Amino acid sequence: MTAENTLETLLNHRSIRKYQDKPVPDTLLERILQAGTRASNTGNMQVYSVVVTRDPAMKEKLSPLHFNQPMVKEAPVVLTIAADVQRFHRWCALNQAEKSYDNFLWFVCGCIDSMLFAQNIAVAAEAEGLGLCFLGTTLYMAEEIAQVLEMPQGVIPITTITLGFPAETPPLTDRLPLKAVVHYETYRKESDEDIRELFHEKDHSELTKKLLEENQLPNLAQVFTRKRYTLKDNLAISSKLHAFLEKNGFLQKG
Amino acid sequence: MTAENTLETLLNHRSIRKYQDKPVPDTLLERILQAGTRASNTGNMQVYSVVVTRDPAMKEKLSPLHFNQPMVKEAPVVLTIAADVQRFHRWCALNQAEKSYDNFLWFVCGCIDSMLFAQNIAVAAEAEGLGLCFLGTTLYMAEEIAQVLEMPQGVIPITTITLGFPAETPPLTDRLPLKAVVHYETYRKESDEDIRELFHEKDHSELTKKLLEENQLPNLAQVFTRKRYTLKDNLAISSKLHAFLEKNGFLQKG
Repeated sequence: MTAENTLETLLNHRSIRKYQDKPVPDTLLERILQAGTRASNTGNMQVYSVVVTRDPAMKEKLSPLHFNQPMVKEAPVVLTIAADVQRFHRWCALNQAEKSYDNFLWFVCGCIDSMLFAQNIAVAAEAEGLGLCFLGTTLYMAEEIAQVLEMPQGVIPITTITLGFPAETPPLTDRLPLKAVVHYETYRKESDEDIRELFHEKDHSELTKKLLEENQLPNLAQVFTRKRYTLKDNLAISSKLHAFLEKNGFLQKG
Repeated sequence: MTAENTLETLLNHRSIRKYQDKPVPDTLLERILQAGTRASNTGNMQVYSVVVTRDPAMKEKLSPLHFNQPMVKEAPVVLTIAADVQRFHRWCALNQAEKSYDNFLWFVCGCIDSMLFAQNIAVAAEAEGLGLCFLGTTLYMAEEIAQVLEMPQGVIPITTITLGFPAETPPLTDRLPLKAVVHYETYRKESDEDIRELFHEKDHSELTKKLLEENQLPNLAQVFTRKRYTLKDNLAISSKLHAFLEKNGFLQKG
């Protein structure tokens, strides 16, 4: 076990996308997952699950669902973390207790529990000398991923972590100044000038200059809206995700 | 700074609901929030915010929105963490970039970012000797909380952390056996017997025995469905939360 100071672990986080060709020992993986389960969760109902993928044939199936990001095939371990009310419902059924958690509130609770579990796994993994990357693509292809992993009704993939011993040491990525995300007592009413100031460093970084040149765009905001996450794609994915939740009963409300 | 091993920090987590009458120094709070921002987030867009409540008058207003759980008034610091696309949209507007993130996908991304941020804050706080409790009630009264904290359109409270120096040392709470939440390669098809076994310890604990007597109910599952989180309440809250998201544009899809 790497004895490392907790704050250092948190402050040194970087996403790792290249991994050594070296498996993650079972006992190490279990220790990390165990640390995940110690996170807080809703009502101690643990409405989440994880599917561990190590089989190359399974990675092969998952890879296109993550748009062939190379980490899926190259990482020794892929963790798909899902909102899960089905285990709890199975238990309810065995106890003549009413099925009560396939509705919108509990989809959000399932997301919350999944992410508390996921972030504890991430912190534990880094403390143990592993590197990882979260894959946002999980939401884009949630239904297809659920099919490949044979998840039953009531289980919705929320995020994926690719995990292994790091084969790169990328620099820390930028963050907005702390005051951008922290408000005191009430949410601050920012002027346009305030917003410009909060984004100034990001707008003018070397990385941004490179991106603007590559994309032939006038500013970074348009790199996001015209290239990375366009309205058209966002609406299409929203529609797909919404339909999948509906199929699983998660859009029920009063 | 408390030099503590990261895994120990994670494995020793307990929710703390009683706090010493002692403020959290500004520099300590900032260090913890800074550690929060180092968590991964969607596209490095940081679609979250936090409102820090320390003013007793503001706690007085928040308290009934959390059903008068005493931690809200007693904790020196209350952190309301929210999914937030408004800051990003403000920046887009200043850059002639299309407003693209008020849709269902980005509500879920906002939840994800909020919880990655929140759990890093929780881990950092505990490493620094503080204690905390997550309040699930945030989702029940999201709209009313947003009003009190003067959150603008596009900002949805997701979770709340009450924070302070601990004045209690509760025992670790139980968790399901690790194998309940971990699946290998494909989601395991459990038999009824498997489910009974996974919940056996929980079903028969001393705590459960006490709860069954107090509630005059035949089993723990019914304590959840008939007392703690009833279908009727879940549907009513789902409906309210759904309507609030709709008002904020977050239910848009293709």
